Amino acid sequence: MKHRTPKTPYLATDGIIEVYDQSGIFEGIVLIERKNTPAGLAFPGGFVEVRERVEDALKREMKEETTLEVSITKLLGVYSDPQRDKRFHTVSIVFLCRATGVPRGGDDAKEAYVYALDNVSKDMLVFDHQKIFEDYIKQRTGAQEHDTLPIA
Amino acid sequence: MKHRTPKTPYLATDGIIEVYDQSGIFEGIVLIERKNTPAGLAFPGGFVEVRERVEDALKREMKEETTLEVSITKLLGVYSDPQRDKRFHTVSIVFLCRATGVPRGGDDAKEAYVYALDNVSKDMLVFDHQKIFEDYIKQRTGAQEHDTLPIA
Repeated sequence: MKHRTPKTPYLATDGIIEVYDQSGIFEGIVLIERKNTPAGLAFPGGFVEVRERVEDALKREMKEETTLEVSITKLLGVYSDPQRDKRFHTVSIVFLCRATGVPRGGDDAKEAYVYALDNVSKDMLVFDHQKIFEDYIKQRTGAQEHDTLPIA
Repeated sequence: MKHRTPKTPYLATDGIIEVYDQSGIFEGIVLIERKNTPAGLAFPGGFVEVRERVEDALKREMKEETTLEVSITKLLGVYSDPQRDKRFHTVSIVFLCRATGVPRGGDDAKEAYVYALDNVSKDMLVFDHQKIFEDYIKQRTGAQEHDTLPIA
């Protein structure tokens, strides 16, 4: 049987990398300064390749853009507003992950930095990454509240 | 600036529809009998169109294949093994959703049925939908355990 080839949006994956120091203390999250347009700060990420699992694409992109080896903590969300990327319709699957060490910019990232959460300010991030950041903060707060349940 | 056009996997979305009766009692989940190859039972779903949000694609496909108007409960997972669809590399974003009423097969679905969870048996489902079902059951059980926390 012949299969019609579907036309679907481009598929990308982005990671919020929580950086911990050697003693397990949370330091902040990684932002990169993009080499390509749109210029600005963003979460590291990139397109998923054909024949590549999304989780593998995520780890590859985190390594390429920040040099960090990350482990994936959880699936955070799927962002698919057709307007989120002005170039073309790109759906991003966003994961929370963790790493230790100091990120260094590579590949499409001019620089990579660890930002304390309080230092991520409004309108600092390109695409819809501000919304992704807010969703992360919401669910981080939710998770922390949940963590306190057994103690309460 | 010219943008290279990326080559990424095809993007689909599937739904586990929990069907509730008018008094809010859980009846089961919807499976469809596929009209196209691979023939067999599956969760309803289909490809995301360009310029369409994934959640809108999900609701559209649920409506087309089962006639049900669903509300989305939560994001269940992302399935991206390159072998999961033998035709080509398809990444599926799977949502849990809920509906009331009786499903009827439409579009790519020859039939649509409500299956009690106990009646979904091994090797009944095509693609990797058996794995998706198992993940659903795991997280359903987890959610129920969580529900009992405040009472314990």
